[in-house]
Amino acid sequence: MTDTVGFIGLGVMGRPMARNLLRHGFRLIVHSRSRGPVDEVVAAGATSAQSPADIARLSTRIITMLPDGPDVERVLAGPDGVLASLQPGSVVIDMSTIAPATARRLAAQVQARGASMLDAPVSGGEIGAIDGTLSIMVGGDGSALDTVRPILAAMGNAERIIHIGESGAGQICKACNQLVIGGTLAAVGEAFALARKSGVDPSKVRAALMGGFAASRVLEVHGERLLQNNFKPGFPARLYRKDLKIVMDALSDAQAPAPVTAVVQQLLTALIADGKEALDYSALGTVIADLARAE
Amino acid sequence: MTDTVGFIGLGVMGRPMARNLLRHGFRLIVHSRSRGPVDEVVAAGATSAQSPADIARLSTRIITMLPDGPDVERVLAGPDGVLASLQPGSVVIDMSTIAPATARRLAAQVQARGASMLDAPVSGGEIGAIDGTLSIMVGGDGSALDTVRPILAAMGNAERIIHIGESGAGQICKACNQLVIGGTLAAVGEAFALARKSGVDPSKVRAALMGGFAASRVLEVHGERLLQNNFKPGFPARLYRKDLKIVMDALSDAQAPAPVTAVVQQLLTALIADGKEALDYSALGTVIADLARAE
Repeated sequence: MTDTVGFIGLGVMGRPMARNLLRHGFRLIVHSRSRGPVDEVVAAGATSAQSPADIARLSTRIITMLPDGPDVERVLAGPDGVLASLQPGSVVIDMSTIAPATARRLAAQVQARGASMLDAPVSGGEIGAIDGTLSIMVGGDGSALDTVRPILAAMGNAERIIHIGESGAGQICKACNQLVIGGTLAAVGEAFALARKSGVDPSKVRAALMGGFAASRVLEVHGERLLQNNFKPGFPARLYRKDLKIVMDALSDAQAPAPVTAVVQQLLTALIADGKEALDYSALGTVIADLARAE
Repeated sequence: MTDTVGFIGLGVMGRPMARNLLRHGFRLIVHSRSRGPVDEVVAAGATSAQSPADIARLSTRIITMLPDGPDVERVLAGPDGVLASLQPGSVVIDMSTIAPATARRLAAQVQARGASMLDAPVSGGEIGAIDGTLSIMVGGDGSALDTVRPILAAMGNAERIIHIGESGAGQICKACNQLVIGGTLAAVGEAFALARKSGVDPSKVRAALMGGFAASRVLEVHGERLLQNNFKPGFPARLYRKDLKIVMDALSDAQAPAPVTAVVQQLLTALIADGKEALDYSALGTVIADLARAE
């Protein structure tokens, strides 16, 4: 018998993730603020609930996939929230990208109700959500994770569901992920600007670098976007700004200095100041080219 | 009939490259400042020459593999240098990592003698030199390159011998390579420091990140070195300092601002100020951990 899964938040990521749960035979009860996505997922076989509290009444496996920490806080601890009717032994799986500190605080509130909470942010973007190939970085109790692995495996690669550590560790890992991407992306942007301004074709540089130690997924995928000047999102810069704010707060909380990431954040600020927050975040690599007036 | 190849500079990289030329059946005439490496390569089948000028008298395909630009300048344009006896139609292939501006200037001097010069720096390190799997980034005349492709293919992967552009373009590409590696490495160091200071195992973070957009050769190879605290070179930090100086000068010449790379250079300065110039350059990633007193 498969679990009944509650799913809250049917945005760009949540919708395809919910559909993959249905495809894998899970019974699904959904809630979201907008009517359209709910209707779509109900048409695909889900049931709809009136509130997060209703979801918690009807299921003991509850996924949240929301824009930011305050949204998760509201859905869990707000009026008609999950905590109002959470059943003991339930597992709440927050797959949003939020501050590690918020994740730890909410996990403590869930635990006080005799239930478990996992922070389980993802990487892989909309494509990964649609294809069911997300990487999932999990913080929280390992035995709670074991009970929901089949659920997570419906949305991500089974071998990429990684238990990182205690509550909040999944969000720390996601922060590391966003930090590393930012530094790599800025460096690729600087390299392409150097090439262009030196009269060298950056596509040749990219091809040569892909064969050696400078090779990365960022150089491969975002490098191609930079060469094509194609910034149709993807993952819009305004969401990456939110993620980098989480990164900077986590660095500050941990007293971990990160001078490269601080510069990356400034470059992102310049991109957004230039009115480009709706572009794919890989446009970060163009800020340096703009500074160099190379385009 | 195979070419006679002249080879000047039998250091850590040059020695295995010369041996690979012998292994592929090229007749080899070598010159180097130290006696030991010359004896070793002569024992493997090469002939030795008294000076760079002698090399140029006896061969029309001349490779230089030297520590820095001034060394290449001396070997080519100094007393008893290559230019003193360079035959028209010869091809000089400088595989050292030097400033693009120096490469262009020397190429003009070689061309004034009716010969061609290619800048052909490599990536792949000592392992790549031994295995004959170097990536080779070539600047200069394409038809001169075509005449020496079999020679280069004895030292590198044939499909990774990439004609980047005009004279100096190979060095620009190498500068881009070293720049991208530095930014990526610093970001990985910052991410690992964030993880450690947050009580999260950085090896779990590395494993999770390798599955997604943050994946890179730097995270894979240097990330592993950082986790093991293993900085046996490899490529010592003092040589990377030389390369980053070339990068900064090239950026300045091109009027290309590079704020992330500027920070990377400061972190490298901190590493070297800490007496660690003999460590592998991946130790750059520890500077941030040290700043964060995470170790």
